[in-house]
Amino acid sequence: MKFSKLHAIPQKSSKTEASINASLLIKGGFINQVMAGVYTFLPLGLRVLNKIESIVREEMDTVGREILMSALAPQAAWEQTGRLNTVDVLMKTTGANALSLQKNTSEYILNCTHEDVITGLVKNYASSYRDLPVALYQIQNKFRNEARAKSGLLRCREFRMKDLYSFHASKEDFQTFYEAIKLVYLKIFEKLGLGETTVITLASGGDFTKDYSHEFQTKCINGEDLVFHAVKENIYYNKEVTPCLAPTVIQDESQKPAQKIHTPGAKTMEQLVPMLKIAKEKCVKTIIYQAADGEVVAVALRGDREVDEGKLSKILDKKLKLATPQTILEATGAEVGYAGVLDLKPNVRLIADDSTAPLVNFESGANQTDYHWLNLNWDRDLKKPSKFYDVKVTKPGDIDPQTQKPYPYFKASEVGNIFPLGNKFPDAFNYTYTSNNGQIKPVFMGSYGIGTSRLMGVLVEIFHDQKGIVWPKAVAPYQVHLVSLGQVGDKAEMLYKKLRATNIEVLWDDRDISAGAKFADADLIGCPVRLVVSNKTGDNVEWKERSKTEIEMLNISQVIERLIDAKTTRNI
Amino acid sequence: MKFSKLHAIPQKSSKTEASINASLLIKGGFINQVMAGVYTFLPLGLRVLNKIESIVREEMDTVGREILMSALAPQAAWEQTGRLNTVDVLMKTTGANALSLQKNTSEYILNCTHEDVITGLVKNYASSYRDLPVALYQIQNKFRNEARAKSGLLRCREFRMKDLYSFHASKEDFQTFYEAIKLVYLKIFEKLGLGETTVITLASGGDFTKDYSHEFQTKCINGEDLVFHAVKENIYYNKEVTPCLAPTVIQDESQKPAQKIHTPGAKTMEQLVPMLKIAKEKCVKTIIYQAADGEVVAVALRGDREVDEGKLSKILDKKLKLATPQTILEATGAEVGYAGVLDLKPNVRLIADDSTAPLVNFESGANQTDYHWLNLNWDRDLKKPSKFYDVKVTKPGDIDPQTQKPYPYFKASEVGNIFPLGNKFPDAFNYTYTSNNGQIKPVFMGSYGIGTSRLMGVLVEIFHDQKGIVWPKAVAPYQVHLVSLGQVGDKAEMLYKKLRATNIEVLWDDRDISAGAKFADADLIGCPVRLVVSNKTGDNVEWKERSKTEIEMLNISQVIERLIDAKTTRNI
Repeated sequence: MKFSKLHAIPQKSSKTEASINASLLIKGGFINQVMAGVYTFLPLGLRVLNKIESIVREEMDTVGREILMSALAPQAAWEQTGRLNTVDVLMKTTGANALSLQKNTSEYILNCTHEDVITGLVKNYASSYRDLPVALYQIQNKFRNEARAKSGLLRCREFRMKDLYSFHASKEDFQTFYEAIKLVYLKIFEKLGLGETTVITLASGGDFTKDYSHEFQTKCINGEDLVFHAVKENIYYNKEVTPCLAPTVIQDESQKPAQKIHTPGAKTMEQLVPMLKIAKEKCVKTIIYQAADGEVVAVALRGDREVDEGKLSKILDKKLKLATPQTILEATGAEVGYAGVLDLKPNVRLIADDSTAPLVNFESGANQTDYHWLNLNWDRDLKKPSKFYDVKVTKPGDIDPQTQKPYPYFKASEVGNIFPLGNKFPDAFNYTYTSNNGQIKPVFMGSYGIGTSRLMGVLVEIFHDQKGIVWPKAVAPYQVHLVSLGQVGDKAEMLYKKLRATNIEVLWDDRDISAGAKFADADLIGCPVRLVVSNKTGDNVEWKERSKTEIEMLNISQVIERLIDAKTTRNI
Repeated sequence: MKFSKLHAIPQKSSKTEASINASLLIKGGFINQVMAGVYTFLPLGLRVLNKIESIVREEMDTVGREILMSALAPQAAWEQTGRLNTVDVLMKTTGANALSLQKNTSEYILNCTHEDVITGLVKNYASSYRDLPVALYQIQNKFRNEARAKSGLLRCREFRMKDLYSFHASKEDFQTFYEAIKLVYLKIFEKLGLGETTVITLASGGDFTKDYSHEFQTKCINGEDLVFHAVKENIYYNKEVTPCLAPTVIQDESQKPAQKIHTPGAKTMEQLVPMLKIAKEKCVKTIIYQAADGEVVAVALRGDREVDEGKLSKILDKKLKLATPQTILEATGAEVGYAGVLDLKPNVRLIADDSTAPLVNFESGANQTDYHWLNLNWDRDLKKPSKFYDVKVTKPGDIDPQTQKPYPYFKASEVGNIFPLGNKFPDAFNYTYTSNNGQIKPVFMGSYGIGTSRLMGVLVEIFHDQKGIVWPKAVAPYQVHLVSLGQVGDKAEMLYKKLRATNIEVLWDDRDISAGAKFADADLIGCPVRLVVSNKTGDNVEWKERSKTEIEMLNISQVIERLIDAKTTRNI
């Protein structure tokens, strides 16, 4: 491809992008921002995206059949699964103006995932044990009504995704497939150049399942996730599900008399700590939650820790939300800001985090407006809970309960995730199958996602330097970036044609601009090999790899030989 | 591919589909209906779609670069072109539930076409004469808020489309490109097996342009369009723009005295004709229209003809809509239903269709509630208009003004369309370019569409028989449908492997069902060649082409030889 025919080329962007991936991809002419969280893939970017999706497709074809579902879905499908009002990124469509609404007033859902559509589909085609298992996948656009979208391709309102769904006659069959998919995913990330940096991580099942789901997390300094490594069992945890102990703060002091203090207006830790002149680590904060069934729960943590609502809902096996001021008043007898562990109303269940267990002479709200306690002690002022829980957000420095040492951890970007869905969606659609002896049996389901446009963003976050992108060979838009300098058109054209005849992908910068500008664009675009033809190179060609600094002079046969060699070995 | 691994296979559908394409494609396991006008492409259907899109892509790559734009667009883009409230199929998105709206309350447009997005994009990349022309295309999903969607893949609310956009430094450069695209399109339809049945047709420019646009219309008995052939200049016209004369009804009678008749409640031709006992062809109906600038227009046609509002707006060079009852009262002095050509108020402009010119003793509304005239005559009762117009919808039997003979015509399905857009969209975005002598100059634009999923539906409408689909070879899901009957698994497997080793696409029906059911499915799915291996065929194979009735016995080398031969020659 010649630059002059590329039509959408590197741009000096005046706008500062919040993320490295958006910044480099926009400057390099790979993508263009349509609006926050929505991008156009330009010719260079579409080539990279296609390569990523080809690698994904190649592996998916070994385990399932490709289909293509629609973005639009009837609201009824999402009602049937009870998710129409619970999925907080769901979008819908309607006519955009009066003329359009005259034609059709229906509203449709824009799918952010396809469990709610494919389950009804597969039900039509696989009702007998003979038809199962079924595994169907697609690669298409998903829509999410994100609050903020400032991470380039990492978090978009519209994005490309590969989603695979599998349906099985037994839990065992499902489990075998699920494990096989883990290996297929690892192979995909290996091919994309992420093999060494990607690990399988336990994560929350989210909306989908109470079990763990599995995330594929790639180490990435700008990653939005935090992964903790439990070295004893060699398990990686997403922050949200990492079992942890807070490092204890040594307190070898003797018990002091409890003291109720007047603390008018001190409703938060930030207000209380300077007023009482105590460390957050000597405080117990108490947060009141409420479940849909009416149960009121007080969560107590050490003052420097936050509640992990995922862990909380797992402990209680139900979803909870922060209580209203009215409920707090009923549960504590006080306004918001003075809840504490002593003298809670009898109907309130206390869930105390293990960070509070060793505390001596601790502070707590007094369950009385404008009052806090100082110097409370378990089993003296109030009964020590028979059981403490891990209900805190895990932080760097937290202790692995297995080793009793701080967890090794790293920042990471999620590049894939897989979900064991059990019978949830088949049940919602009354989807069962007939076994070989005529019994009606439940169907087991899993879903498996890879965000392909997101992957492009992650690759840039990982593979770049201060000059631009350094694409892994497998996804580079072109293998060779040919730069011709000065009046060497014929020589360059000859080399260009020779490379193409050998099926080497080549981008030829045939523009009439300075050498410096061409080199800068070559570094920005990040093809694996840069070749320079100029008046100085004579019959030879200058060879430089994007990831290295050395420049070599080679003759044309050597160049071709190396490139063919690189093609087979996937080197360079 | 083995049937047992296909996962979504031919179904005995209980539901009757309104269209042949939906009926055959659903029964054959190619597509599944998600809801009216929205379909999932199953493995077989996606293969066909991919083949169609590959053919389109191959030709598009010779004239432009591929990109991928988003379905979502900011409302501002559509406001800038003034089309936010005028495009009557436009859809928008918003959060689907309260949680989602808490995150983001923005509304976005779901593009039904991309002129309103790509013009702003190209403006960024091509501001100098050096950068032009630019031609970018994409293949992705479009959304239209159709009122009815009962034609299977022919008219969908979500569908696949290839759209190409070109930007030029001069009208001449645009025109050269536009003509080149016509040839590229014809080549595409040729490759798809539609070469002999597809013609270029003049059509209305619609929302886009006052010039003619060009449609590619394929002869199709169930087509929704009517194409008229002007044989003298060898031009094909879409019904909506065909210049025509209505066949005259011979009236060799002498003038009779005009008569005003009391016709209470007779407001339509259907009510009037039985009351007055006259033929529709002796009536003149008068329809009152109104323009945005306030002008009121009375359109007079022979009673058996209808107004073509496209022709009307072309005659007056502005859009008109049916007048309100109040305007009709002011223009005629009568309630709705009694408008006529005699005694219209002086501010009303009369546009008389040429079908009314030769009438003698004609009926017309009396511009007086509950009264009509009988036996009016031009230039006796009222001045004959100095000019008559062609403002009627063209019908089969209408006269070609060039030949004075009835037009040859045929039903057709649109498979592509191209639009000369002039400066309309560049102007809306203040997109100009700098010429080689530093002048600021206007950019000329065109857009070029092919509905790829619609094409799949048209192909089925054309290529089918009573047993199922008869795919053209270029888009068949597989070249060979291998049927194994009885205990011949090893023999079939051997042939299956041999075909695959020779890169012949083969679908092997390995199911344990009756021969009749397998043959029926083979006919339904419509692969070009059916091969049968059974206990009866011995070392040979039964060869039958889908489009023929003969069955031949061939040995395996002959089979392979023929298939390889067919691959190169595109026969069979």
